[in-house]
Amino acid sequence: MTPDTEDPVEILNEEECWKILSDATLGRLALSIANEPEIYPINFVAHGRKILLRTNPGEKLFALTINENVALETDGVGSQSVWSVVVKGKARQLDSGAEIEAAEKIPRQQMTSVRKRVFVEIVPTSVSGRRIHRGPENDELTASDLY
Amino acid sequence: MTPDTEDPVEILNEEECWKILSDATLGRLALSIANEPEIYPINFVAHGRKILLRTNPGEKLFALTINENVALETDGVGSQSVWSVVVKGKARQLDSGAEIEAAEKIPRQQMTSVRKRVFVEIVPTSVSGRRIHRGPENDELTASDLY
Repeated sequence: MTPDTEDPVEILNEEECWKILSDATLGRLALSIANEPEIYPINFVAHGRKILLRTNPGEKLFALTINENVALETDGVGSQSVWSVVVKGKARQLDSGAEIEAAEKIPRQQMTSVRKRVFVEIVPTSVSGRRIHRGPENDELTASDLY
Repeated sequence: MTPDTEDPVEILNEEECWKILSDATLGRLALSIANEPEIYPINFVAHGRKILLRTNPGEKLFALTINENVALETDGVGSQSVWSVVVKGKARQLDSGAEIEAAEKIPRQQMTSVRKRVFVEIVPTSVSGRRIHRGPENDELTASDLY
């Protein structure tokens, strides 16, 4: 942000988005079934420019098999800024033994529940993000002010 | 939750969901455009068994005019429990002067940015929620563990 522009919203580049994604653990996953949205809170790990999450057989996984297109959002409020990043992409369940073994070795994987037995990978088709730097004049910003 | 059941996830009734919704201010709104999901962080107010939010002319509002079906999720982690509530419903922009005037009088409306000039109302078709009570054995729960 340059201080003299009117719009305080800064558009993040891909590198900045991935930095935020790699620091985040909680997001919300949006799916679309018969052109109606579904949404779930999820833990995820950003790794190798992909997103990895764990789930169990159930409605979320079933929804992913019907429509692989997903949008994952994570946001946060820090002392200096407010941000939101959205990854759009295609989700698929990891099914080969080698893939699952590799996924299990990814650091921070312990942050997702071990009770969830299925790995799902999101291969991004787009990554976008926004940030507003907080100041005296916009002290009560939330992620909602980004869009 | 009864302590001796195996599944720690408690399904919330509608009353409990509205209590959580009325205490919340930040959620994420999922939309579906051409059967692909979109997701935005939003501030909202629960009022009279409806959800009210403010936005500006832009891609989010445009998306709502293409497909009125939305899903709004809010979640949180407290000292005692972790919860998530999802409202599915139909969104529409308030357009009459009387409606807008009434919306502007709703308490806590100041929590959404005054820079956002358009009111959108979500009339719910379903409200659902889940909660897990935290205990020594599940100290590191997040909302992701609910689904």
